[in-house]
Amino acid sequence: MKVRVRYSETDCSGVVYHSNYLSYCEVGRTELMRELQIPYRSLELDHLLVLPVVDMRVRYYSPARYDDEVRTETRVVALRGARIQFAYQLFRESDNQHLLDATTTLGCIEAESGRPKRLPKAMVESLSPFLQEHPRCMPAGLMNT
Amino acid sequence: MKVRVRYSETDCSGVVYHSNYLSYCEVGRTELMRELQIPYRSLELDHLLVLPVVDMRVRYYSPARYDDEVRTETRVVALRGARIQFAYQLFRESDNQHLLDATTTLGCIEAESGRPKRLPKAMVESLSPFLQEHPRCMPAGLMNT
Amino acid sequence: MKVRVRYSETDCSGVVYHSNYLSYCEVGRTELMRELQIPYRSLELDHLLVLPVVDMRVRYYSPARYDDEVRTETRVVALRGARIQFAYQLFRESDNQHLLDATTTLGCIEAESGRPKRLPKAMVESLSPFLQEHPRCMPAGLMNT
Amino acid sequence: MKVRVRYSETDCSGVVYHSNYLSYCEVGRTELMRELQIPYRSLELDHLLVLPVVDMRVRYYSPARYDDEVRTETRVVALRGARIQFAYQLFRESDNQHLLDATTTLGCIEAESGRPKRLPKAMVESLSPFLQEHPRCMPAGLMNT
Repeated sequence: MKVRVRYSETDCSGVVYHSNYLSYCEVGRTELMRELQIPYRSLELDHLLVLPVVDMRVRYYSPARYDDEVRTETRVVALRGARIQFAYQLFRESDNQHLLDATTTLGCIEAESGRPKRLPKAMVESLSPFLQEHPRCMPAGLMNT
Repeated sequence: MKVRVRYSETDCSGVVYHSNYLSYCEVGRTELMRELQIPYRSLELDHLLVLPVVDMRVRYYSPARYDDEVRTETRVVALRGARIQFAYQLFRESDNQHLLDATTTLGCIEAESGRPKRLPKAMVESLSPFLQEHPRCMPAGLMNT
Repeated sequence: MKVRVRYSETDCSGVVYHSNYLSYCEVGRTELMRELQIPYRSLELDHLLVLPVVDMRVRYYSPARYDDEVRTETRVVALRGARIQFAYQLFRESDNQHLLDATTTLGCIEAESGRPKRLPKAMVESLSPFLQEHPRCMPAGLMNT
Repeated sequence: MKVRVRYSETDCSGVVYHSNYLSYCEVGRTELMRELQIPYRSLELDHLLVLPVVDMRVRYYSPARYDDEVRTETRVVALRGARIQFAYQLFRESDNQHLLDATTTLGCIEAESGRPKRLPKAMVESLSPFLQEHPRCMPAGLMNT
């Protein structure tokens, strides 16, 4: 998944503002779920679920600049009850520079009541094989932290 | 109404990204309505109305930078049926530099149906005297445009 | 040029926050200039110019929602001295719904001095034929305003 | 330090978008440094330093909504060579609801060269007593993580 850095995403130090990379992670997560036939939008519209971020970690190595093409590699790294964790590695496409490692953990709640809710069975089944193929997929930068 | 420019609101040219000034206008509008006893939040929660922006114009004179204090002067300049227009003048507080003039026109719709709806009578009554006190309040920079 | 609406770009009324559409316009403008062999980044790095937005108008017709694909049609509609004006029409890709019309006028200034500067000759020459092919290209919604 | 949630900071799930809370942390950090007589802007302008975020962690407990007043409590929790770590606790002002715990670690680099640089001596001296007064100040939610 590739996105190009927008002018609006940079700050006056000349690089992408640190929290704006989280939008690139969001794009990576959205496209991964679409690929796995679980479009996030349908979780909200058909299953009446919301998946708020409950934990987020980012380790920054190198900044991206305006007009850089950023490649986001997204994986599901944990899946348990009402929780799902994604890991992201971002790279600048032109020189393959490693920009950052991140993880976000999402909780699953019922939109109406706000109560925790197990992830839909179909979703767990779609994601489980994918998980097994990636037994050691937490980015190294976030392993011992 | 004063806000301080956040790092996140600047871009890599060193100044506030042009569309981020609209957030300062939003703050000015929100605080004006609160002052007039029509908090925007209660329009949504109690009256089940939403007021989307249907027209927006901005003329930029001078940029603001990180940590500048920006003063937003907000006025209601038109009020008719399901429409309300606000005008904004933004200044840098330290030297009174005029940063921009803007107007936004908001439509009033029912949240559920999405259908246009007259502004609540209480709102019109609160705002009308205010309007009369400002017979010529469209910022000059947006008059002949 | 197509972009997909990100969750981060929506607001609590359920649709894209009004000023976030300006980022889609920015993407349209950036890609048009790249296509015309005048990448914006090289204006800044090679010509030491900055093109701040000095005027912006938007008329909103219909909102976009999370995950909608938005098509941005961008044109150059005026080119004179140190000013260039772009016009944008945004559509939802799935049903061709017309979302908004916008124009932005950019001034050309020297990055160092901040003084107005004529647009580079090569840029004017690249854009001029393009202008002539679109003699009447101001979006109708912004014509009489 | 208190900020009021802007409409632009919410998303279509009805609450503040997860990465926008980082702007509130930025405001808390900026105001703490101003109070300690080390305005961030002067680090950039007078010392020609930039302090990019190199690590960020957030644990979310409860969401904030449009127009909520959010109180940010910010502390310096580590200070070593070219690194400074801040911890934040965010609360909703109206009911004292604990919203999140966060830490950000900033590196200190020379603006020109991009090379790491020790924090200015005056800055370390201003902050050190402050550090000693808070021997156990990492938010509990981020201790064992």
